[in-house]
Amino acid sequence: MGPNGTFTHEAASTLDGELVSYCSIPSVMKSVVDETCSKGIIPIENSIEGPVGITLDFLAHQIDLNIEKEIIIPISHNLLIDGHSNKENISINNVKEVYSHSQALAQCQNYLEIHNMKTHFTLSTAAAAKSIKGVKEVGAIGTSKAAEIYGLDILDRNIQDIENNETRFIILSKVKSKITGNDKTSILFSLFDDNPGGLHDILGIFAENNINLTKIESRPSKKGLGKYIFFVDFEGHQDSKIINDILNIIETKSSFMKVLGSYPIAK
Amino acid sequence: MGPNGTFTHEAASTLDGELVSYCSIPSVMKSVVDETCSKGIIPIENSIEGPVGITLDFLAHQIDLNIEKEIIIPISHNLLIDGHSNKENISINNVKEVYSHSQALAQCQNYLEIHNMKTHFTLSTAAAAKSIKGVKEVGAIGTSKAAEIYGLDILDRNIQDIENNETRFIILSKVKSKITGNDKTSILFSLFDDNPGGLHDILGIFAENNINLTKIESRPSKKGLGKYIFFVDFEGHQDSKIINDILNIIETKSSFMKVLGSYPIAK
Repeated sequence: MGPNGTFTHEAASTLDGELVSYCSIPSVMKSVVDETCSKGIIPIENSIEGPVGITLDFLAHQIDLNIEKEIIIPISHNLLIDGHSNKENISINNVKEVYSHSQALAQCQNYLEIHNMKTHFTLSTAAAAKSIKGVKEVGAIGTSKAAEIYGLDILDRNIQDIENNETRFIILSKVKSKITGNDKTSILFSLFDDNPGGLHDILGIFAENNINLTKIESRPSKKGLGKYIFFVDFEGHQDSKIINDILNIIETKSSFMKVLGSYPIAK
Repeated sequence: MGPNGTFTHEAASTLDGELVSYCSIPSVMKSVVDETCSKGIIPIENSIEGPVGITLDFLAHQIDLNIEKEIIIPISHNLLIDGHSNKENISINNVKEVYSHSQALAQCQNYLEIHNMKTHFTLSTAAAAKSIKGVKEVGAIGTSKAAEIYGLDILDRNIQDIENNETRFIILSKVKSKITGNDKTSILFSLFDDNPGGLHDILGIFAENNINLTKIESRPSKKGLGKYIFFVDFEGHQDSKIINDILNIIETKSSFMKVLGSYPIAK
């Protein structure tokens, strides 16, 4: 998982076993590839900000691991301060500068503008929390877990601009999940060049078989503007006959296809 | 346009008229809405990093402006230093810390790792260039234009990891472009809830009419995981009969549709 006190830590706390923290998404994935860790938990998409580009790019180009499980957690941002370094009656309006990860700052933009707070970027919400220890009139946006770990006070709760803010995490491992009857499958594929109807053809395979798509994302293939890798999630397990048949057809209609895993649907 | 010395400045230099710089993408767009400026130039996608989320989100939710033109420029990153503050024979290995925008740092990741350089985030490549004036053994990743403006030296050129690195910029205005015979149209739409085959249906309209799609992106609609706005670019002009008919059909098959503009294809 990521650093202590981040949202990944919140999601990882729902799992069994010892937790090891790494400073970046690629290093979490590499720890599973080289078997330092048996599972890795990383964020894959947020309902407001969209996909986590580095996760999708590593799944597509760099590593071969299996998605074993998904976890969805609501994202709630808090304004943290160091209570020991400030007067007891410090109010929100005394906080002039705020540190956090760029995504957290983006998700609290209205709040920061209304309170006229200057923003500073940090590598994670946990790094932000750590960086404000002992500093006056400066805040960090972070989790309640970070407040607990770094001995900070929560000055304001739920300061994000928009409702429906959830992040989906995936557990990567070398283990394949068995059929439960309520599964989804994640795949990625790219199209042959000069085949403008290619995506329509592939989506048609799902439509004909009444398979629900739960996600579709396009990412640049890094081969030039207008060339994409598509990430599609759909209901069903790759070990069932119908999904297995569909995957075989998609393979013939795409220039590259990869099954990322079949796993139980989180909710 | 964005700050002096950024890639937006490079793209804007190809246009006629006086240039005014703003510190963020939303403020460029707002200057066109309130008619402080007649046109605004902003980045919309990069071939490596993917879409510029804030541009797509503002086009979808916040502003009504027309895409009048597109400009595609190759992205080349340079390592800049302040020659006056360093010894004449400073080498790449003397540079211990590097400042830049997060996207520029991400695009030079291998280079930064090989040379063991510590990274610091800034709000733009221009802000990075400005921040290293008078500082020893510290570099910035930026454009050759930034080196010129801030009186810096280029210590190394083309330090980005990957080929095919291009950024597409759009010119927003209140003017609609006329048909040239070599145009594309940009639209966005979202689907009705509980209609899993909706995207397949809409792509089918293009396939039936032999219309080439040049781009498809999904962005979260901010209404929960799995709910998307689709951004589609295709060949043809909205003032032609065939495209006008297609747009009318899409309107009936989507819960929300917006035409962002028809404009000449850049290359």
